[in-house]
Amino acid sequence: MASNGEWSNDNTSLRGVVGTLMRQAHIAEAQGKTIISLGQGDPSTYSCFAAPKNAQDALVKCTLSSLYNGYAPSLGLPQAKKAVADFLSKDLASKLSPNDVYMTVGCSQAIQICLTVLSSKSPNANILLPKPGFTLYQSLAAEIGIEAIFYELIPEDEWKVNLDQVRQLADENTTAIVVINPNNPCGSVFSREHATEIAQTARDLGISIVSDEIYAHIVYGDYEFVPMAKFASIVPVITLGGLSKRWLIPGWRIGWLAICDPNGFLKPKKVQQAIEVLMNITPTPSTMIQAAVPSVLQDTCQEFHEQTLQLLKTAANICYERIQKIDALSCYSRPNGSMFIMAKLNLHLLKGIKDDMDFAWHLMNEEAVLVVPGFILGMKDWIRISFAAPSTLLEEAWDRIESFCCRSSYL
Amino acid sequence: MASNGEWSNDNTSLRGVVGTLMRQAHIAEAQGKTIISLGQGDPSTYSCFAAPKNAQDALVKCTLSSLYNGYAPSLGLPQAKKAVADFLSKDLASKLSPNDVYMTVGCSQAIQICLTVLSSKSPNANILLPKPGFTLYQSLAAEIGIEAIFYELIPEDEWKVNLDQVRQLADENTTAIVVINPNNPCGSVFSREHATEIAQTARDLGISIVSDEIYAHIVYGDYEFVPMAKFASIVPVITLGGLSKRWLIPGWRIGWLAICDPNGFLKPKKVQQAIEVLMNITPTPSTMIQAAVPSVLQDTCQEFHEQTLQLLKTAANICYERIQKIDALSCYSRPNGSMFIMAKLNLHLLKGIKDDMDFAWHLMNEEAVLVVPGFILGMKDWIRISFAAPSTLLEEAWDRIESFCCRSSYL
Repeated sequence: MASNGEWSNDNTSLRGVVGTLMRQAHIAEAQGKTIISLGQGDPSTYSCFAAPKNAQDALVKCTLSSLYNGYAPSLGLPQAKKAVADFLSKDLASKLSPNDVYMTVGCSQAIQICLTVLSSKSPNANILLPKPGFTLYQSLAAEIGIEAIFYELIPEDEWKVNLDQVRQLADENTTAIVVINPNNPCGSVFSREHATEIAQTARDLGISIVSDEIYAHIVYGDYEFVPMAKFASIVPVITLGGLSKRWLIPGWRIGWLAICDPNGFLKPKKVQQAIEVLMNITPTPSTMIQAAVPSVLQDTCQEFHEQTLQLLKTAANICYERIQKIDALSCYSRPNGSMFIMAKLNLHLLKGIKDDMDFAWHLMNEEAVLVVPGFILGMKDWIRISFAAPSTLLEEAWDRIESFCCRSSYL
Repeated sequence: MASNGEWSNDNTSLRGVVGTLMRQAHIAEAQGKTIISLGQGDPSTYSCFAAPKNAQDALVKCTLSSLYNGYAPSLGLPQAKKAVADFLSKDLASKLSPNDVYMTVGCSQAIQICLTVLSSKSPNANILLPKPGFTLYQSLAAEIGIEAIFYELIPEDEWKVNLDQVRQLADENTTAIVVINPNNPCGSVFSREHATEIAQTARDLGISIVSDEIYAHIVYGDYEFVPMAKFASIVPVITLGGLSKRWLIPGWRIGWLAICDPNGFLKPKKVQQAIEVLMNITPTPSTMIQAAVPSVLQDTCQEFHEQTLQLLKTAANICYERIQKIDALSCYSRPNGSMFIMAKLNLHLLKGIKDDMDFAWHLMNEEAVLVVPGFILGMKDWIRISFAAPSTLLEEAWDRIESFCCRSSYL
């Protein structure tokens, strides 16, 4: 059978856009330039961001035990659910039970399950999503059929949630507000005060909080990480998380969804029952990888996490400083967490570049550096840069970006 | 946070029904009876059905290499796609390319992607499903919003597809017919002649074939396994499969979807493009497990498969013979493949048993034997028995079933 090479470009999803850009690398590659990807938040190919050894050892042990070749229960392997509940409870006054936790195929599936269940509670349901945000929410909302309403994160004010706007946008069909903290794509972290304001606003509006904490604990700046579940006594919180980022093993595909609702606000809506029914017809994460979760959560040493944070802090600072030196780019705040920084394109200074996709496209063609155009994140004419890379490589990428911007500049 | 133990029973999915029945085991267990599950097609807990050693070794090697901790491409790891294409092509005149293969989180996700894409091609699309069938198709069709139309498999005629009925049921909105071969839940295998008739019927109707071959090569009776893709020159075939059954590793969650369409019948419908767009927002299988796929497919020895088939053949015969001795049960044909047999309940001979769920419920309560009530498979007042268990355990289960039927019998 002939190979079907006639793929149309899929520019409706982040993975699709990244795929489109990667296929354009051949021109720069022909000039001997190797690709530097500042696209995805996946540093696992770099040896300085290697997975914890205890995690790999645990998976090997679980594999060799031959105990985990069969199906896991639909809602998750009990020992994995318990380990996640214990892990999340460390920071909370109201402890979670394993029954509050559902194991998912990466955080992506947790998002999918969450949106599907929220949409099923009302035919006209809508959900508040951050702008800029993580494209998967928008793509899945469209696929599932729940209306997405976008509230802005304010670039000039540390990417805080525009809570006045949230109050105006919410209506009687609003089921929840999605917050991502630490934030992808902005690199921001909510202060305790701002997290409190968000919780109070959601409580006042009578809506739940979906707290995407896939970057939980990846903070290295002005603010400590405050899990939204700390406010679960006043507003129901659905926490989404996983092993992908903090433990640097996104390919393992382990995520979770936790219902943090000590006062049972969600009980009348039978949210947990709806999750159970859905998970009975949904793919589950690999059994032996679930079996390794307790060891990954409990045995990974503090030094491992500190080293990762130090690397990311250095990388964040490199990006922030380099952007300041390029007139064609602007950035209002230094990242405090996650693995990303957003830079605004000053298009009036760039010759022949008509928008953010055009910038990313030419940058790939000429310099083989992959950045994500902001349109796919809801921020046209911005770019997202993942700085989860070794410093030397990052400096090389910035040399290329600077060189590209200089060549394209009117100045 | 208090444990939420107030789950309502989910009797809309196979996993839900199995969960409901398992929660009823306490009565029999209190009498010292251990549960014997003849529920799922997952024998991996029994040592005689252990996973191939080379498969586990390959996974350990991929894990320790540290090469596969990152994200895999949305459509699958290239070496896994190639290995599956080569594996499926062995039986085919028109060879598959790796671009025709998509890696999925178990065969379940392949079903989900297939139905979603078929439904997206027309707002009124419908799909022909076998009855009895695999519940997930019906559950997902309802969730996705594609109309399910059921055609019967004829119990008295080796569970052949009722092709006259298929011709009557198909209309202008029918996109495809799903066939499951070797068959779950019937234990039947299509003869070459019958497979040909099915392909010709689909061709005449202008619809695709979705061929669920998760039990591919698990045949031990009158007929050899004939992949539907053999007929792909006259009708487009979407083959669904995975490692779960033949390699006895369902917990690994590796499935695939292959487009077998050498004449490009599906090209105008842009089916592959739709799959790509969907997979860009869909969870992927674990990377290191995908990396182990080539070794699992290429290095598992013939003796491993022969031993499994011998065990299943013996088990199938035990079930068939034992059913013949119980008046309250009927069975029209000996299984030729897969891991299941369907038995009809002669309810007029059973005191106080009102239907198949009632039978399964009381059997669990009194004898701690789990069987699947047929209603969830579209065959009310039948039961499905998985015989993927060691012979001695199977005989013990049948002793209990026989004892239960005798106690409940009017005779």
